[in-house]
Amino acid sequence: MVLHNILLSFGTGLSSLMAPLPFLATAEAEDSPIILSGVLLTLVVIYLASKLGGEAAQRLDFPPVLGELVAGVIVGVSALHFVVFPEGGMSASDSVIMTFLQSLNQLTPDAVTRIFESQSEVISVLAEIGVIILLFEIGLESDLRQLKEVGIQATVVACVGVAAPFAAGTVGLMTIFHVPAIPAIFAGAALTATSIGITSKVLSELGQLKSKEGQIIVGAAVIDDVLGIIVLAVVASLAKTGEIDVVNVIYLIVSATAFLLGSILLGGIFNKTFVSVVEQLKTRGNIVVPAFIFAFLMAFLGNAIHLEAILGAFAAGLVLDETDARNELDELIKPIADLLVPIFFVTVGARADLGVLNPAVPENRAGLLIASFLIVVAIIGKVITGWAVFGQPGINRWAIGVGMIPRGEVGLVFAGIGSASGVLDKPLEVSIIIMVILTTFLAPPFLRVAFGQTPETATLETGGK
Amino acid sequence: MVLHNILLSFGTGLSSLMAPLPFLATAEAEDSPIILSGVLLTLVVIYLASKLGGEAAQRLDFPPVLGELVAGVIVGVSALHFVVFPEGGMSASDSVIMTFLQSLNQLTPDAVTRIFESQSEVISVLAEIGVIILLFEIGLESDLRQLKEVGIQATVVACVGVAAPFAAGTVGLMTIFHVPAIPAIFAGAALTATSIGITSKVLSELGQLKSKEGQIIVGAAVIDDVLGIIVLAVVASLAKTGEIDVVNVIYLIVSATAFLLGSILLGGIFNKTFVSVVEQLKTRGNIVVPAFIFAFLMAFLGNAIHLEAILGAFAAGLVLDETDARNELDELIKPIADLLVPIFFVTVGARADLGVLNPAVPENRAGLLIASFLIVVAIIGKVITGWAVFGQPGINRWAIGVGMIPRGEVGLVFAGIGSASGVLDKPLEVSIIIMVILTTFLAPPFLRVAFGQTPETATLETGGK
Repeated sequence: MVLHNILLSFGTGLSSLMAPLPFLATAEAEDSPIILSGVLLTLVVIYLASKLGGEAAQRLDFPPVLGELVAGVIVGVSALHFVVFPEGGMSASDSVIMTFLQSLNQLTPDAVTRIFESQSEVISVLAEIGVIILLFEIGLESDLRQLKEVGIQATVVACVGVAAPFAAGTVGLMTIFHVPAIPAIFAGAALTATSIGITSKVLSELGQLKSKEGQIIVGAAVIDDVLGIIVLAVVASLAKTGEIDVVNVIYLIVSATAFLLGSILLGGIFNKTFVSVVEQLKTRGNIVVPAFIFAFLMAFLGNAIHLEAILGAFAAGLVLDETDARNELDELIKPIADLLVPIFFVTVGARADLGVLNPAVPENRAGLLIASFLIVVAIIGKVITGWAVFGQPGINRWAIGVGMIPRGEVGLVFAGIGSASGVLDKPLEVSIIIMVILTTFLAPPFLRVAFGQTPETATLETGGK
Repeated sequence: MVLHNILLSFGTGLSSLMAPLPFLATAEAEDSPIILSGVLLTLVVIYLASKLGGEAAQRLDFPPVLGELVAGVIVGVSALHFVVFPEGGMSASDSVIMTFLQSLNQLTPDAVTRIFESQSEVISVLAEIGVIILLFEIGLESDLRQLKEVGIQATVVACVGVAAPFAAGTVGLMTIFHVPAIPAIFAGAALTATSIGITSKVLSELGQLKSKEGQIIVGAAVIDDVLGIIVLAVVASLAKTGEIDVVNVIYLIVSATAFLLGSILLGGIFNKTFVSVVEQLKTRGNIVVPAFIFAFLMAFLGNAIHLEAILGAFAAGLVLDETDARNELDELIKPIADLLVPIFFVTVGARADLGVLNPAVPENRAGLLIASFLIVVAIIGKVITGWAVFGQPGINRWAIGVGMIPRGEVGLVFAGIGSASGVLDKPLEVSIIIMVILTTFLAPPFLRVAFGQTPETATLETGGK
């Protein structure tokens, strides 16, 4: 077996040589250079797509992130099949990159399947690290004092933005489409959570992240995300046992509150420690490495207490924003974000299967009808949140409401769990996916219109560097 | 099955929620948030180790990279078992991080094994991307014109540095230790290749990368790496069939030469294209993303034609060094390198099993004796290369010779292939591993002494940012 592997290794052209692994006795170790090839090629495709899409969007006066999402759709499961993932039911033979590597290295079908899974795993983790870094950067760009000032406004916006679409969606599905109560509640719940990633990236691109509207949106999106996790816990236990797991819900509420408030309070002490540690360091990476130790640790904690990694990264950014090192850190994090964040947005687009929009498939037709209803509820239910803001004369209520529209990945998690547990039938699942895709893609151009920006000012603010 | 997975998912505390994956029907998808947790925690450990080790080394007047390697040994397979890899025969239960995650998430042994393998795969690829970025940066810092000037010197140094230790090692093993011819040739061959990564990083830290000595060392190390790949192809086919696969050897020589020369020649045309593309781009990442598209594409090509990914990245750096964007690119790549390169060095240390140095194990005792011989040959065989340099009066011959000493990962690939194919017995394999570890760890302090630097100048050149 061992010798066979060695022969195979040389048969496939000395491929084992490229591995920095000392021991090559396992088949997995022999795959290693080809996994690296797959990752490198996928990254090249992702970067090309993100730049072509982002630049095209910029020139058409859309936020660049919309272009990255659309370019992701083009290279992904819906069209060119360069960037596909096994979770979507794709196999290695569906992936253009894997097929290319297979013929280049004369791989067996078993080997190419293993390599496809490993390569997809690496790209998935890189995408997750990408969104962690995005939220860390958004935290750094946000102003804790201003966030505190708009805290109550953001909480009101978040609560209205959860309650309104949930109620309207559930009641509408039950009365208009005669959907039974539990699936209707599940679909209603999928309408609740706002995607922080999409919204904050667009705000940053519009140069509106630090505006009062921007800070209310980001604050509300964070609270919304936590509320979304709690709502999911409630409806999932309802779907599973017909009852609500009160202990788990209380645990989530307490841990989320403690985590966000605790990290901000402790941050006041920690940021002095951070600065004094950084001042002691004399080797390269003296600011960026300690900053990422903190960000990744907080992301891990957010993940470990069953919230989200991105919430931890956002809190870490908020804390470090209070330090003297922040300006330097802002500059250092930019190229890192430029390299990792596009992986997130392009793969979000690549995973979105636009096949569900095809009306030729009967299941899709029923789904499209429900989807039209869900989209209307999803948009109106969030847009009205702008009018929930009080005591802020002259504030751009449209912008706040529109900023809460994109559902992003959280809505897809609802659809996935609902479908896998049998609560959602196919048309309802399809309609949720369509709602998520359209709200995600509509929000960036809507937001630009809501902020009433001309192409000139936008180019000035987002252009260059 | 699907429902069972969902129940399991909620049983383990809503872990599936943290996944940005739309469909959670597979066990693999449910692992995803825990894989992310494992990767984040491993990165935190790696960064802490790299900073503690690097800073300690700096204060003790050693190059920081030595501290990173030693810190890697401490957190790795030899000591604390925080960062371990399945290739070294380790299982998930040997990993402190995996054991922690298992108890945190109540994982089954199957799940933790899957997660351990995926997490190790991700960290391995990140380490490989780290060394790719290191060589890209070294290429950017190198001066193509100066490299061309010292090209003949570098070639002579490389050839002497391959021939001398190979001949002395093989003959010595056969005459002194009565090792049969083929294993002796294999072990002799393991003495040939210089680790570009270690050497160039130390040179950069000493501020000597752009010196004439530094450029000769880097040039020779690159040629050495290519020669090492060819030598490995020769001895491996000799070990396999008793004959030399001439076609493969010629293919490697031609493709390596064509790749390096071709990329440099084409580079003269391409770098103008690069600058004009960069000038067109208006969104964020307008320099760094195109640069990495080029670097990763070249790394892929190097890998695909069965050379090494790092050679492609180095060539890409050399080409872009010729462009007007180089100064800006130098600045932008630094934080990226600071974040990814330490993963490479810490994992090199973490993979090095110092257990082979334990004389209580009988196999190690025989190995230690042969190792002492190999280390002497490895050091002398490379140090004499400094005196092969001609027509350069006043050049620091010691520094050049010492700069070629570290064997790094290439030597370990020899040991791994030799052992797996049955050519090397255990003592000989152990002695090669010891030789690689010691030459790698001795080179950084030796190199500092050879360049005769005082702590003051070194701190000035490597300190800050």
